[in-house]
Amino acid sequence: MPQLGLLHGRAWAVLFGQLRRPPGAVCIRAVHSHSQGQQYFQVAEAALATQLKPHQEKSNFIIKTPKGTRDLSPQQVVVREKILDMVVSCFKRHGAKGLDTPAFELKETLTEKYGEDSGLIYDLKDQGGELLSLRYDLTVPFARYLAMNKVKKMKRYHVGKVWRRESPTIAQGRYREFCQCDFDIAGQFDPMIPDAECLKIMCEILSGLQLGDFLIKVNDRRILDGIFAVCGVPESKFHAICSSVDKLDKMSWKDVRHEMVAKKGLAAEIADRIGDYVQCHGGVSLVKQMFQDPRLSQNKQALEGLGDLKLLFEYLTLFGIAEKISFDLSLARGLDYYTGVIYEAVLLQTPAHAEEEPLNVGSVAAGGRYDGLVGMFDPKGHNVPCVGLSIGVERIFSIVEQRMKTFGEKIRTTETQVFVATPQKNFLQERLKLIAELWDAGIKAELMYKNNPKLLTQLHYCENMGIPLVVIIGEQELKEGVIMLRSVASREEVAITRENLVAEIQKRLSES
Amino acid sequence: MPQLGLLHGRAWAVLFGQLRRPPGAVCIRAVHSHSQGQQYFQVAEAALATQLKPHQEKSNFIIKTPKGTRDLSPQQVVVREKILDMVVSCFKRHGAKGLDTPAFELKETLTEKYGEDSGLIYDLKDQGGELLSLRYDLTVPFARYLAMNKVKKMKRYHVGKVWRRESPTIAQGRYREFCQCDFDIAGQFDPMIPDAECLKIMCEILSGLQLGDFLIKVNDRRILDGIFAVCGVPESKFHAICSSVDKLDKMSWKDVRHEMVAKKGLAAEIADRIGDYVQCHGGVSLVKQMFQDPRLSQNKQALEGLGDLKLLFEYLTLFGIAEKISFDLSLARGLDYYTGVIYEAVLLQTPAHAEEEPLNVGSVAAGGRYDGLVGMFDPKGHNVPCVGLSIGVERIFSIVEQRMKTFGEKIRTTETQVFVATPQKNFLQERLKLIAELWDAGIKAELMYKNNPKLLTQLHYCENMGIPLVVIIGEQELKEGVIMLRSVASREEVAITRENLVAEIQKRLSES
Repeated sequence: MPQLGLLHGRAWAVLFGQLRRPPGAVCIRAVHSHSQGQQYFQVAEAALATQLKPHQEKSNFIIKTPKGTRDLSPQQVVVREKILDMVVSCFKRHGAKGLDTPAFELKETLTEKYGEDSGLIYDLKDQGGELLSLRYDLTVPFARYLAMNKVKKMKRYHVGKVWRRESPTIAQGRYREFCQCDFDIAGQFDPMIPDAECLKIMCEILSGLQLGDFLIKVNDRRILDGIFAVCGVPESKFHAICSSVDKLDKMSWKDVRHEMVAKKGLAAEIADRIGDYVQCHGGVSLVKQMFQDPRLSQNKQALEGLGDLKLLFEYLTLFGIAEKISFDLSLARGLDYYTGVIYEAVLLQTPAHAEEEPLNVGSVAAGGRYDGLVGMFDPKGHNVPCVGLSIGVERIFSIVEQRMKTFGEKIRTTETQVFVATPQKNFLQERLKLIAELWDAGIKAELMYKNNPKLLTQLHYCENMGIPLVVIIGEQELKEGVIMLRSVASREEVAITRENLVAEIQKRLSES
Repeated sequence: MPQLGLLHGRAWAVLFGQLRRPPGAVCIRAVHSHSQGQQYFQVAEAALATQLKPHQEKSNFIIKTPKGTRDLSPQQVVVREKILDMVVSCFKRHGAKGLDTPAFELKETLTEKYGEDSGLIYDLKDQGGELLSLRYDLTVPFARYLAMNKVKKMKRYHVGKVWRRESPTIAQGRYREFCQCDFDIAGQFDPMIPDAECLKIMCEILSGLQLGDFLIKVNDRRILDGIFAVCGVPESKFHAICSSVDKLDKMSWKDVRHEMVAKKGLAAEIADRIGDYVQCHGGVSLVKQMFQDPRLSQNKQALEGLGDLKLLFEYLTLFGIAEKISFDLSLARGLDYYTGVIYEAVLLQTPAHAEEEPLNVGSVAAGGRYDGLVGMFDPKGHNVPCVGLSIGVERIFSIVEQRMKTFGEKIRTTETQVFVATPQKNFLQERLKLIAELWDAGIKAELMYKNNPKLLTQLHYCENMGIPLVVIIGEQELKEGVIMLRSVASREEVAITRENLVAEIQKRLSES
């Protein structure tokens, strides 16, 4: 059966065929204005009275979704489905298997995995039995799965919701419930081959979604640790200082330095030494330069990291994506579990003036190597090295939605192909018999749930909903054993014998 | 780009082409044996020591998924995807839009909706802010959405997980986290037209999935209330007695009667009068018979229900599904919110002896009319009449998984089309360049993450994973500018020039 597209022709072009934004039309951060129209109602007690148990009283309550969450409208669901299909088909192109894990985990499973962000985990109420928490990402459940089932090798993808009790700054498109799309490769392999594939996947997805220019920042936790060590940071403060460095994409070096010194008790001269490093970024030449750095080249960990990055850049060149990658010493990634290479993709906005640098308008994908996480779950501490990535689809959804709004394009929220109409009263029985025939032939069909609908109402509905075909049955047609088949776009009608109707509809749909 | 099937030919036949079960091979309730192999490990403190903060101590913990939940393996994910695709495509065939709501709601949103089952709701811990609960079904969030957005008319589907703190009897396939597939029609329409469509959808899905013979039981809450009234049940006990009747599919009338009398304080003679009714079931003739019932025909509510059922059977006849429907006075449905027609689909197992009745082997879909639920959320109590259905996909997943196990069929868990191999050492660079070409052409391809893998290992992997094609590159090929293309099934190899490789692969894939 041929599939009709979900979108009108031009909307498709907007969604996936449009490389450039109209100048100044789209601001990546100004998203989700639809959710600000959320409505609050006081529910009167009267409305509940009949359903309530006699002795219970109920104060008025507000009807809304929980703070930081929202419903997704049919329009949003359609856009999401299309984007997720593209992401998942890329994951499958790279040989990944699907995996699904529960929405909640034992509280202890999530403990000690997220550093400073652990306070954002949603716990479930203790209703007797185990203490549970909603999953915070899809990575820790994956590691738990590998350890629990003694899986030593696996390439898997997982698309699912995760929950974080962030202060919701909805204007920035951050929600407390959001969707993640993860791809990970677990197993002991030769260095940097799976890591390079992860970066290739990020490039394929970001290019495929045509979100505009992007850049992937790459760094290595061992290089960062090496920097901290040669700058004189005490080892007990590595995680805390790493968290501070992680804020460099949102805060200036001055503010980050202040946090290190005033809040985290680092000596000012140590912070300054760190500053000299973490403000560097460049291509493979910066890797070579760091190899020559008199202090850093003395640190074993840093040298391992630099060696791997050099190899990584070789593979990225073979994949044809080296020019999309930037070695950026400020990239830290907040999560505790990373142990090696880390990366983050940011969208770039072409500046108004050619001499300015492209503007970073936000991270849309990230990941890295976490060789120690599975071992945290294994009774003997046996590790399974892992590397993976997560696509920040919520931000991508926002960008695409905003772009479609800018273009004023309407999305079809249903896929209905044929509407069954009548100009006459008392024709419900005939309509029901006819539509059942269409459904049984796999044709997507609707009718009006009225005994005697007006023809004009029925035709207007088809125009509003973008339904391409209408079959019309009336007394005359019934007498002659025919049906009128009408094209909504051209308004042309032809009479077709009842027995040829399904075949004719299928022919028309396969041609469109 | 042509799509390869996910399954080998015969597995498809098993999944969707097989109408009959082999005699005695499948027991619907004996499912999910895979989850019983769940492994528990003690995690040694040593493994955690390096990651733990210095002053924290941690007792050993067990690594597992929370009680009543489980991971879904890649095999399970593939089966699920196929089944959900079929269900959703049926919903779309009937013109439904997609909707998504958060995993949790304000606690108050769920209060007073589920009768005796309210104790099974998962609450979130009070971490400051709103009191929240995990959603218990997809119906109450839908009603909340309609009221909140003042939507008066909508046909929507929603596939998502819901959570219930049931005593998990995993052997029976009941989990605390499970997937629901809901289709609902909201709006003020002429009677029984949307209701009939819901039953048509249930028939299409159950026939389409080829689960064997099935039957849909239909009743009406107003008929039940009428029965309770004419039998002398006090109105305050209607909900409680309705809950007891609901257990008739799992308990004998004797036990249900005992519950009514001993636990719910109903007079024995009233219970006996109820028993005379609720043990009746039949077709449209039973509707007519009940119209003549001297007591019931005096009750206004019952007459309304019977009138609607009569109309419903007319429409079901036009849809060609009347013979699948049974008017069953024992059907009650536990949930508080139903107000009119209710229904439940059960699978039937052909009995060993022809003279026996077909065995009910469990409910796989259910629903009904709930005209008062939206009004519970509306400030002025304005109602939006609704009718809908929910497909019990978890049970369907179990049946299909069990059937595939019985047939010993292997499912492909990846969709990889081409494997890039080499017989020689030091050919990683060539392999990486080649595979990037394939990925960029949209071909699903994998390679081994090793510098020097053995050719036999590479070919074995393809056979195990069902990958149909291998491209082989070595020194000789590199010199001659060709690639060997090997069919895994026939083991035939042909040399193809490098520039024709992608086109040749695409041709082969489109033919297979």
